[in-house]
Amino acid sequence: AGVLSQLSSHSRNGRVCVSPCFSLQRRNNSTSPKIKVDLDSSTGVAVLMMQSPPVNSLSLEFLTDFCINLEKLEMDKSCRGLILTSTLSKVFSAGLDIMEMYGTSPERCGEFWKAVQEMWLKLYGSNMVTIAAINGSSPAGGCLMSIGCDYRIMADNPRYSIGLNETQLGIVAPFWFKDTLVNTVGNRTAELSLELGQLYSAPEALKIGLVDRLVPQDQVLSTAQDTMSKWLAIPDHARQITKSMMRKQTIDKLLSNREADITNFVSFITKDSIQRSLRMYLEMLKSRKV
Amino acid sequence: AGVLSQLSSHSRNGRVCVSPCFSLQRRNNSTSPKIKVDLDSSTGVAVLMMQSPPVNSLSLEFLTDFCINLEKLEMDKSCRGLILTSTLSKVFSAGLDIMEMYGTSPERCGEFWKAVQEMWLKLYGSNMVTIAAINGSSPAGGCLMSIGCDYRIMADNPRYSIGLNETQLGIVAPFWFKDTLVNTVGNRTAELSLELGQLYSAPEALKIGLVDRLVPQDQVLSTAQDTMSKWLAIPDHARQITKSMMRKQTIDKLLSNREADITNFVSFITKDSIQRSLRMYLEMLKSRKV
Amino acid sequence: AGVLSQLSSHSRNGRVCVSPCFSLQRRNNSTSPKIKVDLDSSTGVAVLMMQSPPVNSLSLEFLTDFCINLEKLEMDKSCRGLILTSTLSKVFSAGLDIMEMYGTSPERCGEFWKAVQEMWLKLYGSNMVTIAAINGSSPAGGCLMSIGCDYRIMADNPRYSIGLNETQLGIVAPFWFKDTLVNTVGNRTAELSLELGQLYSAPEALKIGLVDRLVPQDQVLSTAQDTMSKWLAIPDHARQITKSMMRKQTIDKLLSNREADITNFVSFITKDSIQRSLRMYLEMLKSRKV
Repeated sequence: AGVLSQLSSHSRNGRVCVSPCFSLQRRNNSTSPKIKVDLDSSTGVAVLMMQSPPVNSLSLEFLTDFCINLEKLEMDKSCRGLILTSTLSKVFSAGLDIMEMYGTSPERCGEFWKAVQEMWLKLYGSNMVTIAAINGSSPAGGCLMSIGCDYRIMADNPRYSIGLNETQLGIVAPFWFKDTLVNTVGNRTAELSLELGQLYSAPEALKIGLVDRLVPQDQVLSTAQDTMSKWLAIPDHARQITKSMMRKQTIDKLLSNREADITNFVSFITKDSIQRSLRMYLEMLKSRKV
Repeated sequence: AGVLSQLSSHSRNGRVCVSPCFSLQRRNNSTSPKIKVDLDSSTGVAVLMMQSPPVNSLSLEFLTDFCINLEKLEMDKSCRGLILTSTLSKVFSAGLDIMEMYGTSPERCGEFWKAVQEMWLKLYGSNMVTIAAINGSSPAGGCLMSIGCDYRIMADNPRYSIGLNETQLGIVAPFWFKDTLVNTVGNRTAELSLELGQLYSAPEALKIGLVDRLVPQDQVLSTAQDTMSKWLAIPDHARQITKSMMRKQTIDKLLSNREADITNFVSFITKDSIQRSLRMYLEMLKSRKV
Repeated sequence: AGVLSQLSSHSRNGRVCVSPCFSLQRRNNSTSPKIKVDLDSSTGVAVLMMQSPPVNSLSLEFLTDFCINLEKLEMDKSCRGLILTSTLSKVFSAGLDIMEMYGTSPERCGEFWKAVQEMWLKLYGSNMVTIAAINGSSPAGGCLMSIGCDYRIMADNPRYSIGLNETQLGIVAPFWFKDTLVNTVGNRTAELSLELGQLYSAPEALKIGLVDRLVPQDQVLSTAQDTMSKWLAIPDHARQITKSMMRKQTIDKLLSNREADITNFVSFITKDSIQRSLRMYLEMLKSRKV
């Protein structure tokens, strides 16, 4: 209930808005894994379930787990396809964990940002067919995960939203978030979307091409499985070379600017003015939880 | 009446077509300013009104005034948003003034072109939120001004048209006009549009994304004000960094080729064959005015 | 009848599918020309008819003929526009001739690929207005020819399909096929299209912008002629400079990587695994013909 009220308290126009950009992760030291992977050896398709309540925030720990799991599947010759989804009821992922950016040391901040980069590099450049089964809201980092995949299927619930809404919080999506969005929805839509920090309802997201298909909530996963079969009918090597041809330039741009991008992020996020914004935002989140 | 008949004489398919590309400015030495600026200090929004009859031609003098006003607003910390509109009844701007290109010295021609560059550089790279309130036809240079803004609201009058129609006159939109158009409507639509020198009616312009919204003529300005509020809700610094990220590459391309672009324009426009085309066009305009 | 049965045997969902990517050309040594050109000196418009049954496969001989004819027209000052069409009843062109790639020497293979490059370079960079009158299916190389033109009119028959379906055969469209497709339909649609090797029915092709217009089969050529008149109303020099501005970068990319692209193709296509795929495909085609 605490989770839901947090979520609903942020809703605009009736949408489930999971804290416009970042989420406030309740700290717990439980050993329950944040990520669960089911690999069906008969089909070669893995389902990666994000199960870190309340909102699958992308903390350093979460991202590390995510990358380890992705790496394992990437190395596993028997795995050809990956479906990314959430076990939570209304959220795919609320994006980057604000606690990794508020009041933390520059070192930790840099380590965190490197993990965000790593997640995107692994996902956008994966040799596997990657399908996002977006069964809930997916702002900011959650949107980045989605557009890092090959195909996006979203629950047709107009209360779920998706988008790179960073500017609404006074922060900025870096160039590789931007490049990925431009590659997906084109330059002009990306410009409008990023400058206004727009969150799109599922139907709006379909209209601008931010997601590829809407289906009823209970069919998101099965549709992802069906779609995967279609993709796996294409010989892997031909599809992989083609995917690399489409994405290599965008990936290389981050690879050759990785350190500068980290420095840039750390110096921006540790600014007094930005830290003040984050504190106010955190206090707002906390007051709403009470 | 002289103005209107000039305009109507060019109409195709019933559209107000303000001389396909350039306009014949009646010379006057009146001291009435070509541009008027109202800055509302309570909102931080300036309205820049182009009021140079008959058709807001972009002469060297007009462009100089325009740039001075833009520079002033850019420097004014209290000004966060700019709405660009026209006081004329059926024309936003008819584009570059043909008299600046016909029979003038290469020096003057170069000075003129530098002013066109300056106008675009200032507008496309402005830190302010810029909204074009397009309350009339807007061919060629008028279209360039519009796509230099962040957002375009046009009167829903199918007789008003907008587009980069240079090729119809036998001249060529330079690479930075092209880049701005590609950034706005995508590569293929820009290709078709530029090669055919197409003018789009307001509804067609909306369909291809050349403008963002159509409203009744008498609501163009108020809708621009409402839209501006939405944009100003985004923290300036985050929006500005994002805008720069989207547009810097396009702007840098002109900045690093500015002299060559001027040389190129002057040598093209002073060609005998092009001057002949311009003379015929001028004579046609004059005969229509009689 | 042999031709039709070959074609129908490949149909999926009732579409005429002319061997997903390559075609099996029946060898003949007839001296009947594979290409016929009619130049109307009164209009300056040439119609180039591909008439190489059964499916206008792009063999080295065909491509050489094609380039010679294109070069002649390009040099002919009286020719301003080119309409590309097929005399066959259900096929525009089935694409690259598989026999040029199966069991041939690396030298011959390289010569063939150079001819494919030459065809595209000449077409995409032509100074003429080029219109594809697509009166039948047009997979792979046939699609490349189409998107190399300035404008595409297709017969509105849902059984005709068009697309770069190379991955379906386990081979890969090279970067300049990809660049041309991205320029035409945008990055995301190109990505989906290439990775899945999608063939689009005529109505689907219109929807994604792969073709510009659909008309009834018997009006394809006349509509192309009407459209040509509209394009020829634009002064040639202005249109040509504009076209070059839009396409030069894409063309230069191949020009500066031409040898590497040939080496790359030859080493890929002569791989044992790829040759095995081609053999199986050929055997399938042969068995269907019996």
